[in-house]
Formats: sequence, structure tokens, C-alpha cells
Amino acid sequence: MPSKNILLVLAHSEPRSLNGALKDLAITTLTAAGHTVTVSDLYAMKWKAVADAGDFTDEPAGDRFYYARSSARGYKGGTQTADIVAEQKKLIAADAVILQFPLWWFSMPAIMKGWIDRVFAYGLAYGIGYEGGRYGTRYGEGSFVGKRALIVTTTGGQATHFTDRGVNGGIEDLLFPLTHGTLFYTGLDVLPVHAINGSNRLTDEQYAIESARYRERLTALFTDAPIPFRKQNGGDYDEALRLKPGVEGTATGLSIHRGD
Amino acid sequence: MPSKNILLVLAHSEPRSLNGALKDLAITTLTAAGHTVTVSDLYAMKWKAVADAGDFTDEPAGDRFYYARSSARGYKGGTQTADIVAEQKKLIAADAVILQFPLWWFSMPAIMKGWIDRVFAYGLAYGIGYEGGRYGTRYGEGSFVGKRALIVTTTGGQATHFTDRGVNGGIEDLLFPLTHGTLFYTGLDVLPVHAINGSNRLTDEQYAIESARYRERLTALFTDAPIPFRKQNGGDYDEALRLKPGVEGTATGLSIHRGD
Repeated sequence: MPSKNILLVLAHSEPRSLNGALKDLAITTLTAAGHTVTVSDLYAMKWKAVADAGDFTDEPAGDRFYYARSSARGYKGGTQTADIVAEQKKLIAADAVILQFPLWWFSMPAIMKGWIDRVFAYGLAYGIGYEGGRYGTRYGEGSFVGKRALIVTTTGGQATHFTDRGVNGGIEDLLFPLTHGTLFYTGLDVLPVHAINGSNRLTDEQYAIESARYRERLTALFTDAPIPFRKQNGGDYDEALRLKPGVEGTATGLSIHRGD
Repeated sequence: MPSKNILLVLAHSEPRSLNGALKDLAITTLTAAGHTVTVSDLYAMKWKAVADAGDFTDEPAGDRFYYARSSARGYKGGTQTADIVAEQKKLIAADAVILQFPLWWFSMPAIMKGWIDRVFAYGLAYGIGYEGGRYGTRYGEGSFVGKRALIVTTTGGQATHFTDRGVNGGIEDLLFPLTHGTLFYTGLDVLPVHAINGSNRLTDEQYAIESARYRERLTALFTDAPIPFRKQNGGDYDEALRLKPGVEGTATGLSIHRGD
């Protein structure tokens, strides 16, 4: 396989942890396969999580502040802060992005959410192609078409709790705002979530199993089939962007937005 | 109605905005009804969003850092930082909590997620009642039983896009990690989400309609029926915490975790 660029974004503050070990495993495995790995270690970088007026070098004093408007102006005009620009460059250069985080309250830690809030700018990740009554170049189209995304998350719960009938809800449903609403929204091909459960008490034997399982996912990063989310502008949705009657077959819940 | 305490947590940086107006409306309406409103205006407070070792005054230098463990020790031993303690006191004193935020990437802005990540401590919001093979005092039980929660969110999208068949997914499904996985998890009675769509371009007439609609929700804060999520320990889940066969009737998707 030709060499690829992979951006690994990590939201964990302790290198001597399962997440630290998984990060090292990803770097080793992908590098051994001939790829180049760039790591954004958000805690180590002291990443600013909060999106605010300070993200733009030309924010007019006294103006009513509207983040999306400033983001549009800043992305287009080159007045975003350097930390945002650096992450956007990494993302644009990447063939695949891995988002790795412990599942906190069934979603991302704030520092990871803040990476998305600030890096996924208007004009780059959203706000594109709204001409002529069209609801945008999004959901399967957009700046990041051709790139792949993998979410790797560790949870303290048990695998059964994260099945569709499990008390927490299914992991793919819980992360739908990220897989579908964020990554697929910007055009990325999103792979099924890789969850490592019971992460607070892995034995050495369990870690051996989990690391083998993760290595497999990493090896298949460019060959595994992505989640077949339906494209917004692919004919499955009507003009009000509701799924057309019957298109979903026997699927229910959020799975109706998948084409399989 | 007897006077109640309401905690309003706001994640918006611009007072001269729809969110600013909605915040003022909530204060006015609830105060006029004889209630006491405490506001945590996270941007104005410069709330620290990132959960890290700095959240504890007694974190041993050089130790492998594990947030949940430090949170347990800090909550029990009184070594959390003052900003966390202050929010916990507000939450404990509240009869209802309103979380108000613009929907960014189909979830909370990082600053609001960081409020949950840091304030919802081990021993207060999670990590309770794991004795004897039991999977915790959670999902309908916990420290916050008897309190109510309302999520108020503004979106730039259209209402049809947030229906179950809408291209974004249904708003209740998108916010399930917050309503079910966070608020109900800690024992709160969670009201149906109050979403204000098309928020970037409300006319005066539309604002009049939306403010009347919100005022109704505020007036019914203590009388509206909460989402009837199933209690973890109420008999609907088996020992592996999977919903027992057939319990859901005709419900599908994440709605199987509701009892209606």
C-alpha cells in the first residue's frame, strides 16, 4: 500500500495509561506499515478548548460577536489564531484521522469537543454550498471527501451495556453526533467505532487481546468498509431533507440514515 | 406554587444574542413566578473547560493521573478546586437545572461539556452504589433524585431536519447522551428538549412566537411530564443490563429506553 498521512488526535492527559499505550501502538503499527503519523496530543499541547472571540486576530472591538460569522471571515481572510490554522493544515494533509478519547458522559471530553468546535471552521467544514435553496455541501460531500476517520474510545462500562438493548444505548447511536453529524457531515468516510470496554481494569491478558484487536483495525484503516451513511444530496431525502417513505426498509432509529 | 431554586447554566459568549435574550426571558419569567434563579454564565465566568490534574489541590506530583480516582478523592476529601465546589453547591441547592446552549456539531459547546466533566464528580454524580455486583445507583437513582432538568438549545437548522426522519437525526436522539446518559444517569427528571430552530435568522414575529413558546415551558417547569426513561434497577433490564425481550413493545431505536 502506498504511504499515507495519518493524523491522530488524542484527548488524554496521562501517557502512563491505557490511552497512552494505545496511542503508542497506533504510531508503531502505522509507521511499520510505511505510513506517516502526526500526533495532536491535546492535553500535552494545552489545547484551548473554548471557542470565543480570542480565536480571531481581527475581531472588531465592541461588535456583537457571532462565532460562525467570525469563523467564516477568519478562515477566508487568514485571521484565525495560529493554533487553529496548524490543526487545519494537519487535517487537510491527512488521508485519515483517528480521534482517540475516553468516553466521558457518553461523548467526547471537552478538550476534544473544543478541537472540533475551533478547527472545523465555517468555509472549511460547514457553511459550504448553500446556493439556490440547496441545504449545503454536507453529509457525504464537503472539503474532506476522500479522507477516512476512525473513532477509538475507551469506556469504563461493559460491552453488553453498549449494545442496542444495553442500558447505556448502543455505542454507534451514542456517537452518531460525531460520526454522522460531524465527520460524515464534512465528507469523511467514517469507519465503525472502535470501543475498548472495561478499560479501568484490563488484565495483561485482556490488554494483549485488545491490542491485537486494535492492531487489526489499524491495519485495515484504508480497506475496511466505512459506515454507509446516506448522502444528503444522493436522492434518499426529500426537499425538506426528510428521508423518503420506505427508503429505510426494515431499519429503525438512527440506523435509517444508513444505506445498508 | 411554592418558591423553587433554579440553576440556569448558559454557554454563550454574547449577551446581545438570541441566547442572551432567552436567558433574560428565563430569569424574568421564573422570578415573576416567585422562584429564585441562579445563573452560571460560563463564558462570563471564564469557566475552565478542561478536566485535568489542576482540578485537585492535593494531586500527588509524579503519580499516574486517573481523573475518576482523583475526582473520588477530591470530592470526598474536600480537595477539589473552588470553582468546581461552587457549581456543585449550586446544583445541590437547585430544584431544577436549565442547561442552555447553541447546538454545535449536534452536541454541547466544549465549555458546557467541560462544566459536566468537572462538576459531575465521582461520588456525587457517578461511582455510587456498586456494591454486591450491582451496576450502580444510576439511571433514575442517584444524588439528584427529585430535581428536574430542562435542555434549551438553539440550532441554525430547520425543524424538519431534526425530526426522526430528518437528515440530522431527531433532536431527542442526538441529545440522548446528555438527557439519558448524563442527567437521568444522576437521578434527575429530564423534560423533553426545548429546541429553537432557524436561530440565525429569527424575525421579530418569529421571536415573539418563540419567546411565548419558551415562556410556556418555563411556566410548566415543575409540572410538565419528564421523559419516562426506564430505571436501570426497575426490572426492565436483565442482569447484564440489556433490556428484557419484548419490554419495548413497538418502540425502536433509542426510544426502547423509554417506558411510554
